[in-house]
Amino acid sequence: MIDLRSDTLTRPTEAMRAAMASAEVGDDVYGEDPTAARLEERVAAMFGHEAALFVPTGSMGNVLAVRSLVAPGQEVLCESRAHIARAELGAHGAYSGITMRTWIDPRGQVDLPTIRSLFAPDMGPFFVPTAAISVENTHNFAGGAVLPLQDLRDLREFATGVGAGIHLDGARIWNAHVATGTPFEEYGAVADVLSVCLSKGLGAPIGSVLVGSSDAVAEARVWRKRMGGGMRQVGILAAAGLHALDHHVERLADDHAHARLLAEACGVDPASVDTNIVVVDRSDAAEFVAAAHAEGVAVATVGPTAVRMVTHLDVTRDDAEKAAAVLGRL
Amino acid sequence: MIDLRSDTLTRPTEAMRAAMASAEVGDDVYGEDPTAARLEERVAAMFGHEAALFVPTGSMGNVLAVRSLVAPGQEVLCESRAHIARAELGAHGAYSGITMRTWIDPRGQVDLPTIRSLFAPDMGPFFVPTAAISVENTHNFAGGAVLPLQDLRDLREFATGVGAGIHLDGARIWNAHVATGTPFEEYGAVADVLSVCLSKGLGAPIGSVLVGSSDAVAEARVWRKRMGGGMRQVGILAAAGLHALDHHVERLADDHAHARLLAEACGVDPASVDTNIVVVDRSDAAEFVAAAHAEGVAVATVGPTAVRMVTHLDVTRDDAEKAAAVLGRL
Amino acid sequence: MIDLRSDTLTRPTEAMRAAMASAEVGDDVYGEDPTAARLEERVAAMFGHEAALFVPTGSMGNVLAVRSLVAPGQEVLCESRAHIARAELGAHGAYSGITMRTWIDPRGQVDLPTIRSLFAPDMGPFFVPTAAISVENTHNFAGGAVLPLQDLRDLREFATGVGAGIHLDGARIWNAHVATGTPFEEYGAVADVLSVCLSKGLGAPIGSVLVGSSDAVAEARVWRKRMGGGMRQVGILAAAGLHALDHHVERLADDHAHARLLAEACGVDPASVDTNIVVVDRSDAAEFVAAAHAEGVAVATVGPTAVRMVTHLDVTRDDAEKAAAVLGRL
Amino acid sequence: MIDLRSDTLTRPTEAMRAAMASAEVGDDVYGEDPTAARLEERVAAMFGHEAALFVPTGSMGNVLAVRSLVAPGQEVLCESRAHIARAELGAHGAYSGITMRTWIDPRGQVDLPTIRSLFAPDMGPFFVPTAAISVENTHNFAGGAVLPLQDLRDLREFATGVGAGIHLDGARIWNAHVATGTPFEEYGAVADVLSVCLSKGLGAPIGSVLVGSSDAVAEARVWRKRMGGGMRQVGILAAAGLHALDHHVERLADDHAHARLLAEACGVDPASVDTNIVVVDRSDAAEFVAAAHAEGVAVATVGPTAVRMVTHLDVTRDDAEKAAAVLGRL
Repeated sequence: MIDLRSDTLTRPTEAMRAAMASAEVGDDVYGEDPTAARLEERVAAMFGHEAALFVPTGSMGNVLAVRSLVAPGQEVLCESRAHIARAELGAHGAYSGITMRTWIDPRGQVDLPTIRSLFAPDMGPFFVPTAAISVENTHNFAGGAVLPLQDLRDLREFATGVGAGIHLDGARIWNAHVATGTPFEEYGAVADVLSVCLSKGLGAPIGSVLVGSSDAVAEARVWRKRMGGGMRQVGILAAAGLHALDHHVERLADDHAHARLLAEACGVDPASVDTNIVVVDRSDAAEFVAAAHAEGVAVATVGPTAVRMVTHLDVTRDDAEKAAAVLGRL
Repeated sequence: MIDLRSDTLTRPTEAMRAAMASAEVGDDVYGEDPTAARLEERVAAMFGHEAALFVPTGSMGNVLAVRSLVAPGQEVLCESRAHIARAELGAHGAYSGITMRTWIDPRGQVDLPTIRSLFAPDMGPFFVPTAAISVENTHNFAGGAVLPLQDLRDLREFATGVGAGIHLDGARIWNAHVATGTPFEEYGAVADVLSVCLSKGLGAPIGSVLVGSSDAVAEARVWRKRMGGGMRQVGILAAAGLHALDHHVERLADDHAHARLLAEACGVDPASVDTNIVVVDRSDAAEFVAAAHAEGVAVATVGPTAVRMVTHLDVTRDDAEKAAAVLGRL
Repeated sequence: MIDLRSDTLTRPTEAMRAAMASAEVGDDVYGEDPTAARLEERVAAMFGHEAALFVPTGSMGNVLAVRSLVAPGQEVLCESRAHIARAELGAHGAYSGITMRTWIDPRGQVDLPTIRSLFAPDMGPFFVPTAAISVENTHNFAGGAVLPLQDLRDLREFATGVGAGIHLDGARIWNAHVATGTPFEEYGAVADVLSVCLSKGLGAPIGSVLVGSSDAVAEARVWRKRMGGGMRQVGILAAAGLHALDHHVERLADDHAHARLLAEACGVDPASVDTNIVVVDRSDAAEFVAAAHAEGVAVATVGPTAVRMVTHLDVTRDDAEKAAAVLGRL
Repeated sequence: MIDLRSDTLTRPTEAMRAAMASAEVGDDVYGEDPTAARLEERVAAMFGHEAALFVPTGSMGNVLAVRSLVAPGQEVLCESRAHIARAELGAHGAYSGITMRTWIDPRGQVDLPTIRSLFAPDMGPFFVPTAAISVENTHNFAGGAVLPLQDLRDLREFATGVGAGIHLDGARIWNAHVATGTPFEEYGAVADVLSVCLSKGLGAPIGSVLVGSSDAVAEARVWRKRMGGGMRQVGILAAAGLHALDHHVERLADDHAHARLLAEACGVDPASVDTNIVVVDRSDAAEFVAAAHAEGVAVATVGPTAVRMVTHLDVTRDDAEKAAAVLGRL
């Protein structure tokens, strides 16, 4: 089976397993895991921020990141299909108690005029003020679309001007970097807090990293424990993350090439495929998924008429070509 | 001072005070207040629903109404400037733990194509499903705009088809009724649960009513107590509501006429003023408010460049004309 | 029917109704209700605190009071049958997100040695620190028991020493005052924040008052609105409260005498009846309630084998004697 | 440094690392990780329950377990120093919205008469009903005390009779089993839901397991994701857990012997040390900790005058003897 359902499916390579097996560890709840600390320092530095925090999942990273900027009674603005709105089981409301309002962009882009019109200043204890704006780069449910750096900079300028924070959901920021060549610190510069995932395109089995100021990270460390994310010998997992940063970033270019190959086969304009995700609109989505499965290609629906295919570390050139042939036929 | 800041400012009339003073009462936490029961039965019947519940404020009514349809981990869709999103201090997130996504319409209208595109079916425990759609009629921050009945019916048909509930924030449903002649039961028919206010245009000092099925109301009664809304001899307040329903509904036509008068004076197209609210866009909003105040007319800002004026029970024809003269000069 | 189920059942007197009917009012959400302001200032002064806030119910008062001292992740200590633990439908957990631990005293008293042993200092982000201790005076489910002033002072000294706050649930503080002659300001002096009820022994139809520092009250005003307690022309209700403070405090001595009368009839030691509540332990509680009802006396169960009878404004000497005769026979 | 601060400090052995490195894995969010499934099935079977769920921490396990039995507005009863009350940063209130009441026992034991008196039946929507009772075996802050099986059985009988659930916090159930010889299924039989930890005495780097009915586990799986605990290739960690179950259970007897050795040296009655935890009462707790540290023995305070020492996998007989010598001198 060529499995294109998600880039979360990647299995650790032998080299990554070896890195985990030999990781130096300590009790991270006591702040004594040297490998976790090394990973956190490295990721913080990559994005030009003061500090970082290993978290078990991207969802927990996003929840902690958004709540570091937005209190109960305040709101975060995001695009209507943002992962934080659609795919974290409502934790931002259920656990953080925050309000969300959305703008709508088919490509998940920053729509600054609309954001300006939505923005609510703090007008006293009657209204819900906008405390932060969240953007997702690349945008998962908009087909892995990249947000142009200039748009992010314009948003940063607006947000700074009005006193709002910016959260960057960078689960797939690595793909944006590889697709555009934008340095990580440029992405870091536009956000107050980021969450980046090790377990998607980078191929680590478990883990994400929250990046921000020392204060935000210190506070997030407490709330991580409250959420049940205060794990012990985290170095085992952090070692996989460090290995991934060393070996699995630049190779994402292959995933992007494979995705364009699939797009072409499915009649999707390859120019519209920014990274490693292809979304095909099919009124017969469920049947399409079943037919592909029968021919050894696993893809997934992400909406009633939307089929998603995702390339990743465990999909070789050869796999991509075979899958393209199958999907092209359907 | 002619006070146009809000229709919540109305003071009870002598006749309403007399009705309160002679109200028959009991302990409503024990379900023994006959006047509260009479009000609840009457409002339920007006809207063609099984049951109703007196609540101390429109905000509590909306929170209880929305949570009767939407559980933590689920979402409600609403227009971006809905009162539930903007003006209830984030209680739907902070207390009910629900997710909100928004469509954007300058007149606060039902945008069914966009609602269709936002709607999220229940696709298993990964995504946040849309449990309800909330509409506000008339729409406060869209200048008291009326939602056409046909739009509500189309929404009802869509929502029923996909298994979503509809919450109607009818804080000013009385104004919509008077402006259009639509019977209350027609409004009731498009919603699973409504909240309607007695203390705005109707002139009662305190109180709103939640309207819905017997089951929803029974559950809301428990959650009302949990929210601290389980008051005792409620009949005092319910008597004011009953009096208002008898005497203060049809007279809202006067408020609407007064609002058009103000609109004209302020250079706003009177045809755009559906009910009793006029919103004027002024880059000098704060100065305008101060200048009006200096001449004996109180108006309010509802945004950095938005000035709102609201007519109500305590604004006579004469007051409206005087205010129009003042505001016209500015 | 002589109704002894609760002192929340009282109906407003004619004089109280007249006071409400003639109350001067304004929009209290805008801070413009003069009668509400007068009541708040008066109650604050009575207890020697800076400020006060009218709230629709004692439950909301308690929730706002406790949350002014205790944040999510912190705890409040209270006696095991405190109203805040047993009778507010879990709002302190469900809405305020706080942890509660309890000591156990059959008379609801302050057990300082146990409180000392429970007290948790702030030992860093691993443990739940004790932010406040809550006491209830008189203690409803302990049969209206009074907490001796010296015990409260000792608790105050301890709490101040360890940096914890004290919440006094004074729903029936009026009864404690009348039973002991302790000045209100002495009670005020032992607490950081109090909530006192107008709608129990004092006979007002609706309302409670939170009392504390200006900062705490300002913050509680915001959270009151978030909870749906931001009512408009509150003066109607505040007028009843002011009337009750003028006329219904000292007469509570009658209720206490009536309660001792009932106690004697039921074989309860009158010396154990501090105020207006008598709890009788009956294995046949339900049958006893039914039999009393059949003879025109309404009492209530507050536990599987506990029958409670409460005297109040609407129970005359004559009523009490008749009820005593009936209950004595059973 | 001989580190006796906690048994969470254990580092994975070489054999455990090898097991992790060769683990078969899949995406556990999709339910496709075979090693996680094997661990879950094994632990469920050990305790005689239908199903189990791997979670990143014991705290998350406890939060999910308790919420599977207790809804917002309901309460759980537990001993006053239970881990769920004292050491999970208030998550049961802050995230699950539940009420907690406590009984107090210096040895953390089941005090059934007091539990009976605390128990609140469901008496309608005025009171908070007791939905569950939580016990901790062994009880961490009561010095690793074992709860006798007969006490648990009596509690089970009571709870079943009144319709309450039982949560067993079995973070160190392995120690209880080794200390008493009680079969795991006997412990399983007294609880509706258990949480057991792999990362304490068992020596796995990360992970706990929730055990219960298929329905409870299916629901907990959803809430685990909402809490940010839906990790991907969990088999890496589950492999360590399986290895620990094979190799690190029976050896806990050594830890217990070492603990008695330390107790004796510190003047604590070894008969009072049930398992691997020794708590010494020292008025000079902080100085004692510093002095021990200076001599190469790390211990921790768990209260102003309480010093805790914990034996574990990384403390050899030789270490224990050396530490006993050092601590004996102090």
